[in-house]
Amino acid sequence: MNFSIVIRTLGFLILFEALFLLVPLLTATIFWESTFFAYLITIGICLVVGFLCTRLKPKDLNIYSKEAFAIVALGWIVMSLFGALPFVFTQEIPSYIDALFETVSGFTTTGASVLDGVGIESMSRASLTWRSFTHWLGGMGVLIFIMAFLPLSGAKNMNLMKAESPGPQVSKIVPRVKETARILYVIYTILTLLQVVLLWTGGMPLFDSINTAFATAGTGGFAVKGDSMASYSPYIQWVVTVFMLLFSINFNSYFLLSKGKWKDALNAEVRTFLILVLVAVAIIVANLCLQGGYTIVEAINQVPFTVAATISTTGFAVVDFNLWPSLSKTILVLLMFVGACAGSTGGGMKVSRWMMFTKGAFNEIGRLVHPKQVKKITLDKKVVEHEVVRYLNAYFIAFFMILGFSLLLISIEGHDFTTNFTAVVTTMNNVGPGLNLVGPSGNFAFFSNPSKIVFIFDMLAGRLELFPMLVLFSPKTWKK
Amino acid sequence: MNFSIVIRTLGFLILFEALFLLVPLLTATIFWESTFFAYLITIGICLVVGFLCTRLKPKDLNIYSKEAFAIVALGWIVMSLFGALPFVFTQEIPSYIDALFETVSGFTTTGASVLDGVGIESMSRASLTWRSFTHWLGGMGVLIFIMAFLPLSGAKNMNLMKAESPGPQVSKIVPRVKETARILYVIYTILTLLQVVLLWTGGMPLFDSINTAFATAGTGGFAVKGDSMASYSPYIQWVVTVFMLLFSINFNSYFLLSKGKWKDALNAEVRTFLILVLVAVAIIVANLCLQGGYTIVEAINQVPFTVAATISTTGFAVVDFNLWPSLSKTILVLLMFVGACAGSTGGGMKVSRWMMFTKGAFNEIGRLVHPKQVKKITLDKKVVEHEVVRYLNAYFIAFFMILGFSLLLISIEGHDFTTNFTAVVTTMNNVGPGLNLVGPSGNFAFFSNPSKIVFIFDMLAGRLELFPMLVLFSPKTWKK
Repeated sequence: MNFSIVIRTLGFLILFEALFLLVPLLTATIFWESTFFAYLITIGICLVVGFLCTRLKPKDLNIYSKEAFAIVALGWIVMSLFGALPFVFTQEIPSYIDALFETVSGFTTTGASVLDGVGIESMSRASLTWRSFTHWLGGMGVLIFIMAFLPLSGAKNMNLMKAESPGPQVSKIVPRVKETARILYVIYTILTLLQVVLLWTGGMPLFDSINTAFATAGTGGFAVKGDSMASYSPYIQWVVTVFMLLFSINFNSYFLLSKGKWKDALNAEVRTFLILVLVAVAIIVANLCLQGGYTIVEAINQVPFTVAATISTTGFAVVDFNLWPSLSKTILVLLMFVGACAGSTGGGMKVSRWMMFTKGAFNEIGRLVHPKQVKKITLDKKVVEHEVVRYLNAYFIAFFMILGFSLLLISIEGHDFTTNFTAVVTTMNNVGPGLNLVGPSGNFAFFSNPSKIVFIFDMLAGRLELFPMLVLFSPKTWKK
Repeated sequence: MNFSIVIRTLGFLILFEALFLLVPLLTATIFWESTFFAYLITIGICLVVGFLCTRLKPKDLNIYSKEAFAIVALGWIVMSLFGALPFVFTQEIPSYIDALFETVSGFTTTGASVLDGVGIESMSRASLTWRSFTHWLGGMGVLIFIMAFLPLSGAKNMNLMKAESPGPQVSKIVPRVKETARILYVIYTILTLLQVVLLWTGGMPLFDSINTAFATAGTGGFAVKGDSMASYSPYIQWVVTVFMLLFSINFNSYFLLSKGKWKDALNAEVRTFLILVLVAVAIIVANLCLQGGYTIVEAINQVPFTVAATISTTGFAVVDFNLWPSLSKTILVLLMFVGACAGSTGGGMKVSRWMMFTKGAFNEIGRLVHPKQVKKITLDKKVVEHEVVRYLNAYFIAFFMILGFSLLLISIEGHDFTTNFTAVVTTMNNVGPGLNLVGPSGNFAFFSNPSKIVFIFDMLAGRLELFPMLVLFSPKTWKK
């Protein structure tokens, strides 16, 4: 392990966090809030620590696989550790573990909160902005941001990008990593601005519009109101629905669209994703009308939003789906596992992974029928390499093992099985709400600190696709 | 598809079922029950149908992979279809779907029932015997039984054995398949007889002893009393505990033991299995004493039994663990997934599979740290072949996909999430009881017929390790 390059890169990250904290600081200035000082102090701390770390001069500037995984995992942890400070300084979230939970939930774009409706409504504008902004930063990836704008000369940045990007395969849009990172952030910013404009012109206050757009873009789910999105107009809710879906689609598709390559943009994963959304909406609408006592109009107003919020893993709510019939709830829980498209800001296991899992299982059936038949898994007519399939399988198995182990630890507290299970599922898939006690009208405050630490791990593991977090536990990682 | 060999082998199976049905017929004779005629008629039907099917003379007597999977899957379905008839004829289970559920639950050694305590207590002795005896037959495998005693000349029986035997790898004890099958059944019979003697001499009535031994040997779980094993003496309960564990261990180990090869018998899987049992017992005892209001004596009397009943996937009960604290219940649910050792009569995903899953995940972590490192998965110092690993991964993924899809179908009925989830888990892993409505004091009667058909599929898929059942759905299987 090349400790110097790890600490130095973490230093840059902390310096960048000081820069990011200017956003809530600016908000505090505009609204003349006393929270100004909490953010100022945090910025000061970040600058000092970050400056010290970046003084290190590593001999080898290359970031190899091992270092990349450590940087990404530790980077996200360090960012959260510092990012949680303002909530404690302002006493809006007095407990540090609670504040850390909230910050990790922000950066990982989970959106699970320790605050109830009253707590959110009484929060300062600066802190509400910081919550939403962590979503925006975490959505596309903080290290990718830094790679786009910092001259990490000679560093093998592709490893960093691989470790931080969601999805089974990373494809560079353009040959250079830095250029790719920039294009991604440009698309991201344009889409976010577009949403702000559409919300604002639709009658949403500017402050709400900006924060809602941040939280939608990162597919996070922190809202500025206690009832999430329920009290906004249907127009606002539909804009959010559309943008939740837009941010669930591989950003490469937007780049291809801008080049006029419609066919390539609408690839197999995007088509499958959209079909899944339509099928889920249709079944839930039918279920609510037949078993849930809904009128068709009510269902049409609430179901597309809820399905989009779940499969995109945003987690906004316009209705307490915990009160829905069993079938609808089960579909939502399964959609949490499905998740968004690879290369988007959405969480979950990703649609393309499920497509490969399914194809792999069918191939195996084919092989049993014709033992001599050898068939490779393909996606968009491209063969998926053996290495990728093996990693994919390990991901699947590790996912359910971490799920089982987390469930075990959480159940020590004694809550009901559905609460425990969906709490783990919703945090690992970075969604936000679950069922029963952690349903849309509940929150995570009632869990003990040890359980919250389990959830913090699960959120990070989910966002970083397990292995960067697991690598931290391997003694080999730490050998000189 | 060589239809002739499939139908002919199914015919032999049906003829053998007529033979097996002599056991309840004999019971009816001894106890002078009117159910005699129900079993006689069923035997008559089996003889006629079986005789007609075996008249076919296939040109090619070889059983290839495709035919083997079809024979195993269809064989288990056909056996259950005929085996369900007596319950309907006696009107003890008037609905045919209910009777089929009960029979599949018997053959697959699940032990989930559509009968409540009163229903079981009022059942005829012949039918109670048939229920337990289906466990005994299903435990080791019906086709393996036939292979042991029928001269299927020239047939490639290894394919049949592969498709029916539980576990990721099939190792022949001795070079010849027929000899291996015989040795397995000899060990099975000796252990069963030993349990009968120990129960009988311990004060259990002979009828109860034989049936309990049948149900334990197959790790099934149908009891002859309405309260399962709760009203028997502690001695009886401890004997059952020990035998549930004995029948969860790879039968190869007993063969090796008989040859004096102690070290080979106590292989890595057996050691891991025993450690898991001890750890689970320790944690649950602590949990019950600290959170459940149990005394240490109560806990020691109930926990080892319950853990053994769950990990062996037998499903007998001495206590309603649905009332236990959350942690204990979660451990039991996770143990259902773990299951017994490969090559035993137990269900679940099998300890050795989990060992390989874990090793595979760790190897992947190692590869991330040292990308050039190539490390194969080993078990007992033997390298697990790439083909086996691939099949294993496909099994894991298919398992959770079937689980999710079943959960979706079951949830249409509208029961609570915990009931639905654990009902699917307990049937797929061939355990028996789950939580909430399907807890030890409940049963599966309240589910609708469509749901029962889902469970029937899940029980068969679980017992046959998924792929034989899935192969039935592949159009390629049915091509001439």
